[in-house]
Amino acid sequence: MSEEERIAQLSDRLGIPLDPELIIQSHTPYTQLVRGKHDQKPLENKTVLVVGGDGDKCRDVAKQYGFKSMLTPGDIFMAHPSIWPFSSAFSHYYKGITKPLTNSIDPIDPSKGLKIDAILVFNDPRDWALDIQIIIDLLLSREGIVGTISDKNNRDDLPNRGYQQDGQPALYFSNPDLLWAAGYHQPRLGQGGFCAALEGVWSAMTGGSESGVALLKTMIGKPHKLTYDFAEQRLIELRNKRFQTDVPAPLETIYMIGDNPESDIRGAHSYISSTNVNWVPVLVRSGVYTGGTPTWTPKTIVDGVGEAVSWSLAQSNWKQHLSDR
Amino acid sequence: MSEEERIAQLSDRLGIPLDPELIIQSHTPYTQLVRGKHDQKPLENKTVLVVGGDGDKCRDVAKQYGFKSMLTPGDIFMAHPSIWPFSSAFSHYYKGITKPLTNSIDPIDPSKGLKIDAILVFNDPRDWALDIQIIIDLLLSREGIVGTISDKNNRDDLPNRGYQQDGQPALYFSNPDLLWAAGYHQPRLGQGGFCAALEGVWSAMTGGSESGVALLKTMIGKPHKLTYDFAEQRLIELRNKRFQTDVPAPLETIYMIGDNPESDIRGAHSYISSTNVNWVPVLVRSGVYTGGTPTWTPKTIVDGVGEAVSWSLAQSNWKQHLSDR
Repeated sequence: MSEEERIAQLSDRLGIPLDPELIIQSHTPYTQLVRGKHDQKPLENKTVLVVGGDGDKCRDVAKQYGFKSMLTPGDIFMAHPSIWPFSSAFSHYYKGITKPLTNSIDPIDPSKGLKIDAILVFNDPRDWALDIQIIIDLLLSREGIVGTISDKNNRDDLPNRGYQQDGQPALYFSNPDLLWAAGYHQPRLGQGGFCAALEGVWSAMTGGSESGVALLKTMIGKPHKLTYDFAEQRLIELRNKRFQTDVPAPLETIYMIGDNPESDIRGAHSYISSTNVNWVPVLVRSGVYTGGTPTWTPKTIVDGVGEAVSWSLAQSNWKQHLSDR
Repeated sequence: MSEEERIAQLSDRLGIPLDPELIIQSHTPYTQLVRGKHDQKPLENKTVLVVGGDGDKCRDVAKQYGFKSMLTPGDIFMAHPSIWPFSSAFSHYYKGITKPLTNSIDPIDPSKGLKIDAILVFNDPRDWALDIQIIIDLLLSREGIVGTISDKNNRDDLPNRGYQQDGQPALYFSNPDLLWAAGYHQPRLGQGGFCAALEGVWSAMTGGSESGVALLKTMIGKPHKLTYDFAEQRLIELRNKRFQTDVPAPLETIYMIGDNPESDIRGAHSYISSTNVNWVPVLVRSGVYTGGTPTWTPKTIVDGVGEAVSWSLAQSNWKQHLSDR
């Protein structure tokens, strides 16, 4: 779901108009990859593999983020069913959601073939087997060209034994959670579960950490740094806009209100702000955390979000500031 | 596919009548589990989870083997969709192949609920995510009762840190091959790939080998001992039947003709016969192996199966034996 759709849903439920800029989802930081960031070249005019989500929704979100060329594993499967013959069981599903490839795998001269420049897991994959097979193929390929194999793989004179050293697409995950809670009475495997399955296959294919091979990847989402960077930057921008000035007083404190000690609270603890903002973790009892000693210690524990906001405003002496002016 | 179906296919192609006893597939040793074997109690009247294969075929094979009560992960999903909500994408597939459960998950009093006594992976799973979620659930359960969680898990006073120490169903795989060759120009992930994915999730859930936790499982299929045991026993039985005597001369030599150094040849090398049979590995160039130094050294390398049989007959001095009589 895009930020526009998500905020419209919230606006509707709360009965107040809200700006899409107010919401950051786990995959929102992917917007930065369109123009490039750190060691990732701009992806706007490159081909990204969009993995996960129901039907074709994540492709739509990627398009709204500004990516121009997007493929899904299902697109590749429908054009080349032999790449993972077992997904023929799910052809009925793929028929409705896939798009034709603009370029094909060419086993005779692969350099002419389909090239993927980045792999973006947006949301929980449905067909783990197909998605893992295609991601593994790309991570072992030469420069992300589907159907090739890098001759640097398994060379002990190269870093990571030569794996992912040949221009293969970078691999991004939007959410590291191993488990999440839904309708079933026990937690279910999340995107982190898919990543663990991929790690297992990667280990079996390459020898894994025992052989000195890691799966090189970038994790977005709480508790990872990139998401906190992105949120802090967004808060500073919003604040500048609200105060209608280019040089407002520096942002001093961010209250991180969350229900999950392992992601929300841990992230606020571990994050080191480049602008010296003080992140204050506030844990609520109304979600994943229900009681006991949390795995990461918050500044305070309160019953729900309303109470958390009141507590934060009181801490920041907000009323006093107002009356000072 | 059952042994009857497989041998009928072969009979038809070769134009000669053949006995189903002549063929052993990777999952044929599961027939022994019906009456029990080693530390596995008889499963004939227990409920087994049949995993993998296209549609409902493996359930049919299990039934032909003599199992009386069989479930598939799809059966559980269709009765309890919240157990893995993401498989709703594949409901069209499951609708055609699942059967109603005779008992349900009871979250209030799970002891009344669905109980699985063994997990048998027959063939390559299609829906890795559902199959992994349900297998993980069972491995963490109390006595294989779906929807429970064992309070022995993660206890450091127990072997394997308490995991799989509470009457959980044993887990069997019929084929350890990480890769197999089919229509695509590069090898594809096999059942061993699924097992590696499961191992990855198991590690993430339990802490894995770094925390002293293994995934306890039984591997059948080449190169594993159980399959060689089974094959040797079958050959001795067939030989006794053919020679119409209860006390024939002991079987001295078995020629293992295979195309895969890592499974066929490795298995023949590693197997220690309890009846002192000498296993002689013969590698053919007409399959997986096409040239170069094989990873496991055979006694000889020949072009194809016909040549391998001629070589073996010559080695065993068969003609001379015949003329001696």
